[in-house]
Amino acid sequence: MKILVLNCGSSSIKYKLYNMDDNSVLAAGGVERIGLDEAFIKITLPNGEKKKIMHDMPDHKEGVNFVFQCLLDPEFGAIKSLSEIDAVGHRIVQGGDLFEKSVIVDKSVEDGIESLCDLAPVHNAGHLKGLRAVDKLMPQVPQVCVFDNAFHSTMPDYAYLYAVPYELYEKYHVRRYGFHGTSHRYVSQRVCEFLGRDIKTQRIITCHIGNGASVSAVKFGKCVDTSMGLTPLAGVMMGSRSGDIDPSAVTFLMEKLGKKPQEMADFLNKESGVLGITGISSDMREVESAAAEGNERAQLALKMYNYRIKKYIGAYAAAMGGVDIIVWTAGVGENQVGTRLEACSGLEFLGVEMDAEANKVRGEEAIISKPESKVTVCVIPTDEELMIAKDTMALLQK
Amino acid sequence: MKILVLNCGSSSIKYKLYNMDDNSVLAAGGVERIGLDEAFIKITLPNGEKKKIMHDMPDHKEGVNFVFQCLLDPEFGAIKSLSEIDAVGHRIVQGGDLFEKSVIVDKSVEDGIESLCDLAPVHNAGHLKGLRAVDKLMPQVPQVCVFDNAFHSTMPDYAYLYAVPYELYEKYHVRRYGFHGTSHRYVSQRVCEFLGRDIKTQRIITCHIGNGASVSAVKFGKCVDTSMGLTPLAGVMMGSRSGDIDPSAVTFLMEKLGKKPQEMADFLNKESGVLGITGISSDMREVESAAAEGNERAQLALKMYNYRIKKYIGAYAAAMGGVDIIVWTAGVGENQVGTRLEACSGLEFLGVEMDAEANKVRGEEAIISKPESKVTVCVIPTDEELMIAKDTMALLQK
Repeated sequence: MKILVLNCGSSSIKYKLYNMDDNSVLAAGGVERIGLDEAFIKITLPNGEKKKIMHDMPDHKEGVNFVFQCLLDPEFGAIKSLSEIDAVGHRIVQGGDLFEKSVIVDKSVEDGIESLCDLAPVHNAGHLKGLRAVDKLMPQVPQVCVFDNAFHSTMPDYAYLYAVPYELYEKYHVRRYGFHGTSHRYVSQRVCEFLGRDIKTQRIITCHIGNGASVSAVKFGKCVDTSMGLTPLAGVMMGSRSGDIDPSAVTFLMEKLGKKPQEMADFLNKESGVLGITGISSDMREVESAAAEGNERAQLALKMYNYRIKKYIGAYAAAMGGVDIIVWTAGVGENQVGTRLEACSGLEFLGVEMDAEANKVRGEEAIISKPESKVTVCVIPTDEELMIAKDTMALLQK
Repeated sequence: MKILVLNCGSSSIKYKLYNMDDNSVLAAGGVERIGLDEAFIKITLPNGEKKKIMHDMPDHKEGVNFVFQCLLDPEFGAIKSLSEIDAVGHRIVQGGDLFEKSVIVDKSVEDGIESLCDLAPVHNAGHLKGLRAVDKLMPQVPQVCVFDNAFHSTMPDYAYLYAVPYELYEKYHVRRYGFHGTSHRYVSQRVCEFLGRDIKTQRIITCHIGNGASVSAVKFGKCVDTSMGLTPLAGVMMGSRSGDIDPSAVTFLMEKLGKKPQEMADFLNKESGVLGITGISSDMREVESAAAEGNERAQLALKMYNYRIKKYIGAYAAAMGGVDIIVWTAGVGENQVGTRLEACSGLEFLGVEMDAEANKVRGEEAIISKPESKVTVCVIPTDEELMIAKDTMALLQK
């Protein structure tokens, strides 16, 4: 069975084609600048080589169509006919409280995603365009939606509600939804396979730390809390996002900077975080280099970054009555040796004893705590696309 | 030595007159509605009886003057001559990063407090009016300012900075300051006296939980983190304040509700928190009663309230590498048996073992954890005014 996984943004489409017989990736790449000038596709060939082709794509339909053309290309393509694609799985950022798990697309699902555009206008609108483009180009192929926050739908109300008038939750659906759920689900399941433990007995803190970053508390297989909120701005410090901040600081700065609500949200999303503190970069590799060269703001940003993750680890241990496993994943979590070590330092009282040597691993599954550590700390590279492909296959086989 | 402690608000003045020979309270009360119609003073007589006298007070000078008149009253007063007052100590909410400890008032101190009005317009303006009124009425008497956030000035930069562009800290002094510092200082010191321990060896989490509420991490006598921020809105859930919330939820709701920045801040300060969730009350006693009678929103509010304190306890344990003492203080912390028990439940992994029987105490110093509990949990009634009086005396005796 071959499944195409799509992540459709407002002007981009990322894709991966899987052969589900062995979970291998047959093709991967993405189109960018849909509807803009100088649109192009970037393809990663099986040998790892990258290929860029300029191609005019006025809308998502043409974007998806060009992805298909490239998949079919006799020279660098991966399939001979579109009929080889058994299903398409989509990543959907905002499922609100309508979707607690992955679903096969029908009209009601489309309507549901559309009704949530208010909560994630940019993301959900892009997803819808992608869904509809596929539907027009190959109406016979089933599509599945996998929601970023479905895994978090098991949070109890006292964890997901904000302390604002309850009517605002009823009327505007304002609450904590969380994001990166497919990743938190994947690594919490995978780490238990890796360690040979039953997830139903484990209290796991999953640290999905990339350019966007979130920490989740996964108790006995179910998410009970997560650091992102109504939007992906809340929680730990990120590449260019502030994470948590006094809500009055938001209104105070709006007045000082003369910003409107959406402008302020953009500012906290795009000009804050590690970028805002360092003034250099939102990329932790560059910031770590600068810190090593003595840049004080870079050193400060790293301390803030690691400290905030550490506090979430403590908070979620308290939320679950303890912790058995801490998992690191995503760009920073899989590769940034220093962040893992610092954020887990001083947690011996929780039973965390890091192994500095074992921690030197990058991008591969590994135990990075000492054998005698009560809490097992692991690196598990995430694979959201494979998870989406698996969900898609599972729904088709039902 | 007799010291008068004043807490001057925008339209109110609370006072307590101390005999520092034995720390006894000679007189206490407060004027309200300064500058408004139907202004009055409420006096607590030594026998506990309350007395209310209507009196027109167009400004703070007349407010302070009327306090003096009542102190001198032959029938219910406490002193024969104003010359018996050796000094006046003021509670000042916002000392920004200008004041790291209590100071004797001079022109530069006044200017400093005025320069911080931007960060706490209502509070600091009221304090200044009080300071100046006293100065006019008894210019020979020394005045001391005790700042709510001075105790938090020992926080490291990575704990007090927000992940927004660093220039905003430099230009607008946007950072975490924390509040209730005098209370956190008092109870962290007092609990060590009470337990016969050296504060320099103890990691203490102080839960000042009243209508306003904050949690602090006090490591070896110094504050290293606190839950309130630039303003007293951040942190745990409060009577009518939201506490922490996704910063994007602030801007999202501003658009939905059509609110300007200051209106939104007021909304999150006055109509949110326990009041917002229950729709009934911001008073935890009423909410607990309603919950006991089966009110589901009241039950939900209690769960949210306690859960958020629990997460801060976990986070601050992580921040300090463990915890030796947890202290409960202020209105809710001293009296709300259920909140203490719930927030400390499931923390056995931290070494917290509550004693449900001992926890039934209200408003008095007590150990409420089991004798074998690794972490000692205590109730310590706070006394910010006495702390202000003591600081005032100490500065005069220097």
